[in-house]
Amino acid sequence: MPRHALISLAVPPTLELRWVDDLYYGLEELSAAFGVTIVGGNLATTTGPIVVDVTVLGEVEEDLVVRRTGAREGDRLLVTGTLGAPAAALLAWEARVEIPERDRLLTAHRRPRPRVHEGRVVSQSRWATAMIDLSDGLATDLTRLCDANGLGVRLEADALPVDPGLYQVAHQLRIDALDLALRGGEEYELLVAAPPAHAQALAERIRTEVGTAATVIGEFVPAAQGRAVECQGRRVPLLPTGWDHFRQESTADRSA
Amino acid sequence: MPRHALISLAVPPTLELRWVDDLYYGLEELSAAFGVTIVGGNLATTTGPIVVDVTVLGEVEEDLVVRRTGAREGDRLLVTGTLGAPAAALLAWEARVEIPERDRLLTAHRRPRPRVHEGRVVSQSRWATAMIDLSDGLATDLTRLCDANGLGVRLEADALPVDPGLYQVAHQLRIDALDLALRGGEEYELLVAAPPAHAQALAERIRTEVGTAATVIGEFVPAAQGRAVECQGRRVPLLPTGWDHFRQESTADRSA
Repeated sequence: MPRHALISLAVPPTLELRWVDDLYYGLEELSAAFGVTIVGGNLATTTGPIVVDVTVLGEVEEDLVVRRTGAREGDRLLVTGTLGAPAAALLAWEARVEIPERDRLLTAHRRPRPRVHEGRVVSQSRWATAMIDLSDGLATDLTRLCDANGLGVRLEADALPVDPGLYQVAHQLRIDALDLALRGGEEYELLVAAPPAHAQALAERIRTEVGTAATVIGEFVPAAQGRAVECQGRRVPLLPTGWDHFRQESTADRSA
Repeated sequence: MPRHALISLAVPPTLELRWVDDLYYGLEELSAAFGVTIVGGNLATTTGPIVVDVTVLGEVEEDLVVRRTGAREGDRLLVTGTLGAPAAALLAWEARVEIPERDRLLTAHRRPRPRVHEGRVVSQSRWATAMIDLSDGLATDLTRLCDANGLGVRLEADALPVDPGLYQVAHQLRIDALDLALRGGEEYELLVAAPPAHAQALAERIRTEVGTAATVIGEFVPAAQGRAVECQGRRVPLLPTGWDHFRQESTADRSA
């Protein structure tokens, strides 16, 4: 459980104090919601853009720790929440695209909710074999999980919980929604590995106990089978940077 | 005692990996020297200059904690080491001034030694009533200590342990050495308050047990007497930004 936070800011000397105040309002609000105390930090000036560094310290019972390592072949992968909302928000905002769900997407981008309670349910279930959070996008963080465990992976494209707003943005900008969902980033969702016998039950438990969606999206396979996404009968290589849906993977072809 | 450290970097994408490696060599070397383990951190890119944020976590026995508050009227102030070496190094480097002690000063700037053992002696003596470290310069950090304790201060200019190299730089650049010593910054020396009966003994203990110089430089006075530096019979106001040696303080004139 998170307990203490330290906030370090590097800001341009011309920045209005109001900006810093507003940032702290947000930090205080989120900290209070999760019982976290801001205990320190630092303030410095920079000639460059604003840099905010947040260190959070927490505690967990030794026998409830879930690490990045520990996953086995056949373990299923499940992910909390939806994928791609923050990325869609940023794209829509940058391209000035008007979509029905603009405000909800922007909130997902600006006020991500840390999956603290979800993570607690996962660790207390004692079913999870490995876990990571999605800050750099599913493709990148899943690649890290594969690397850490020496495994390959097979994702089901149809199973991915793509945020509906992302389809709206992708349609307007004529880009590949699934690629965006894989690259995403800033979701802070949890990606969890659990044995086949327990994966669906774990997803169900997260939904029941916290009210957050959780979806089984694929499974770990032997490293020799590589890392790929199954999409409408095709097998497409999963790259840390997303996927290349124009490229059909051969058996020998493994993504880095 | 410091135990764990987290290192967050924001670097331009064009930065050579070698620079990051070199930074980590230095961090590892210093951590090892003080029994600190680097347990985490973050790496991000920025379009601005490099930002390095270091969080250090430590432990101290509850009855040995020395805070910023707790100083009383009449308490003497002592400071470890010397003042102004890092500031002198930066000035000499920027102005391309050649002075005999250039290398030693640059080392003081580039490789500051945290005063961990000195701080330990201070807290174990149980004499110290308040303490702060000098990262923003004596004038600024002493002002913080005065504010925290609701006190004024009288510094003895002749007692300040000004780094000899600072005089060389100040002479060449025709600037006021004492002002530079007061504004200084990046020294990471300890500024300690202790009752008059124990201040000299505490300074002596630091010298004996760690081999680091420690000097009594002034005393806390009632807030109504303001904050000033006694210099050759004159009383000059101490400002958070240094001092104004052209300005003679009247009794009613108090620095902020």
